[in-house]
Amino acid sequence: MTAELLRLDEIRAAAGSLPPWVRRTPILPLGDGLFAKCESLQATGSYKLRAAWTVLSRLTPEQRARGAALSSSGNFAAAFAEAGRRLGISTTVVMMARTQPDKVQRARALGAEVVFCEDRFEARFETLRALEAERGLTVVDHLEHRDVLCGHATVGLEIAEDLPDVEVVVVPVSTAGLLAGVAAAVKALRPQARVFGVQPEGSDATWVSLRRGRVTSVPESRTICDALTSTRPGALPFAHVRDLVADVLRVPDPQTVQAVRWLAEQARLVVEPGGAIGLAAHQAGQLPPGRTCVLLSGGNIAGERLARFLTAEPGTVP
Amino acid sequence: MTAELLRLDEIRAAAGSLPPWVRRTPILPLGDGLFAKCESLQATGSYKLRAAWTVLSRLTPEQRARGAALSSSGNFAAAFAEAGRRLGISTTVVMMARTQPDKVQRARALGAEVVFCEDRFEARFETLRALEAERGLTVVDHLEHRDVLCGHATVGLEIAEDLPDVEVVVVPVSTAGLLAGVAAAVKALRPQARVFGVQPEGSDATWVSLRRGRVTSVPESRTICDALTSTRPGALPFAHVRDLVADVLRVPDPQTVQAVRWLAEQARLVVEPGGAIGLAAHQAGQLPPGRTCVLLSGGNIAGERLARFLTAEPGTVP
Repeated sequence: MTAELLRLDEIRAAAGSLPPWVRRTPILPLGDGLFAKCESLQATGSYKLRAAWTVLSRLTPEQRARGAALSSSGNFAAAFAEAGRRLGISTTVVMMARTQPDKVQRARALGAEVVFCEDRFEARFETLRALEAERGLTVVDHLEHRDVLCGHATVGLEIAEDLPDVEVVVVPVSTAGLLAGVAAAVKALRPQARVFGVQPEGSDATWVSLRRGRVTSVPESRTICDALTSTRPGALPFAHVRDLVADVLRVPDPQTVQAVRWLAEQARLVVEPGGAIGLAAHQAGQLPPGRTCVLLSGGNIAGERLARFLTAEPGTVP
Repeated sequence: MTAELLRLDEIRAAAGSLPPWVRRTPILPLGDGLFAKCESLQATGSYKLRAAWTVLSRLTPEQRARGAALSSSGNFAAAFAEAGRRLGISTTVVMMARTQPDKVQRARALGAEVVFCEDRFEARFETLRALEAERGLTVVDHLEHRDVLCGHATVGLEIAEDLPDVEVVVVPVSTAGLLAGVAAAVKALRPQARVFGVQPEGSDATWVSLRRGRVTSVPESRTICDALTSTRPGALPFAHVRDLVADVLRVPDPQTVQAVRWLAEQARLVVEPGGAIGLAAHQAGQLPPGRTCVLLSGGNIAGERLARFLTAEPGTVP
């Protein structure tokens, strides 16, 4: 079975339906032909708001009335809660017990009900299925839902439109949904641009899958990038990675700590580790030369955690 | 003698001559009708680049050949160095010995020669006069130079254009040059908007001057806002404050520490204390209701210092 990749008209439709409070985030120059697409400055602090709106705004009145659920490491939870609040849809999010406490708090503050599961990636889906069966909630499979990918792809559309001479686009990778969406949009509009994904060394399922040529699961993730914990890529995202992506790279966590620090000190941006990993790969010299856009996908990091990153010795993880 | 206030055509001329690498910085919503004009995301990390370019690009060939000098607490130094580098003009900056080391380093890295003076605001001008006499440098009086104010005013122009329904504009104050420029532009385009200045309690010369009705000097500043250390407002800026500004407010430093922290955690922006003081006044409930834009004037704070702010107990100064 061959998955049908995202078409440009689907992506444009998603972009056209985003409300004004979902921001067209700035692309800031970082010097020397390097640019940052700042989804860390998106409302709720991550790109996930685009997909949350796209999915929830397309639910039927019956589905809206029953409420919706998904699983998240935190950023999708906040975005889902916010989009649900705006649309009058009650939201439930399944989170692993080890989730960063500030991310749990943010999702709750925005109105989501949080249901915890054990610290195992697949446990998130088992808990979701139970919620679906028990409560009749509409469950959003964030790995495979086409509307989710179309929402993510709107970031790529903005990169291609606002930085038309971009040559290299660098995207953080967990389920590979963001990478897939961005690649679909960028390659449709700028076929000569090359799109790269980046994973933590301790959470490299898409890297492994790409090398084996098929979706492959890895053991539980071990990384400071708490937003990048998926132990497998989605099947639909992976079809995009295989066809559209130049390569997937890996970065050790201490490099990512220094990227977070550099962004705060030199670019005056607060970016969480999973959001800074593309810059980390660039700073490690892993990317080809050319006009480069790193996607800073999220900025949700507690102040005390950021403080530890800002004072970490190079080569260490605080 | 009555000073002639800035005219809109002068401000527009300055805005029209800014090169593309001087950014039209984003205005980001912070929620509840509050917006931030992010000059912390300006190149070199502060609004000063606008004035540096405006002044230096208007020098005669003879002045350019001799080089230019000004005094600065750090942000103007970096901006002056960068604009000079782009224009091929050698720059010298006079800084007090107590200047934040990262700000000294940044100015030097951008190509300025740094000359230190003693830790007394007026010593900066004594040293500048000596440099003028000894080396024939063109000295820029950053308190009174009309081109400096026109450069600052371009920030106000962008606020008035990009947030046309703004009702309250809040500006950090040191020499009152930024406040004067912003007020001139905003009041010209949006006469119904009210413009407020904010100073640290420990560096309140413009607040004192406004209450006495004339330019008044105060003793040396005692504040964590290292960018707001002027012990008197400029005469030309003060004429604008008296005529165009709704009021000047004062904020205690611990409130500013919490504003820096809030911006990092909730808005994902790194802002230095002097840049965050407008938000601090807003959070302290000192401003009238209405659609409000706080100007975040700079983001140059060393990572280790920011780390201390992020972990400071409310009510304390780290």
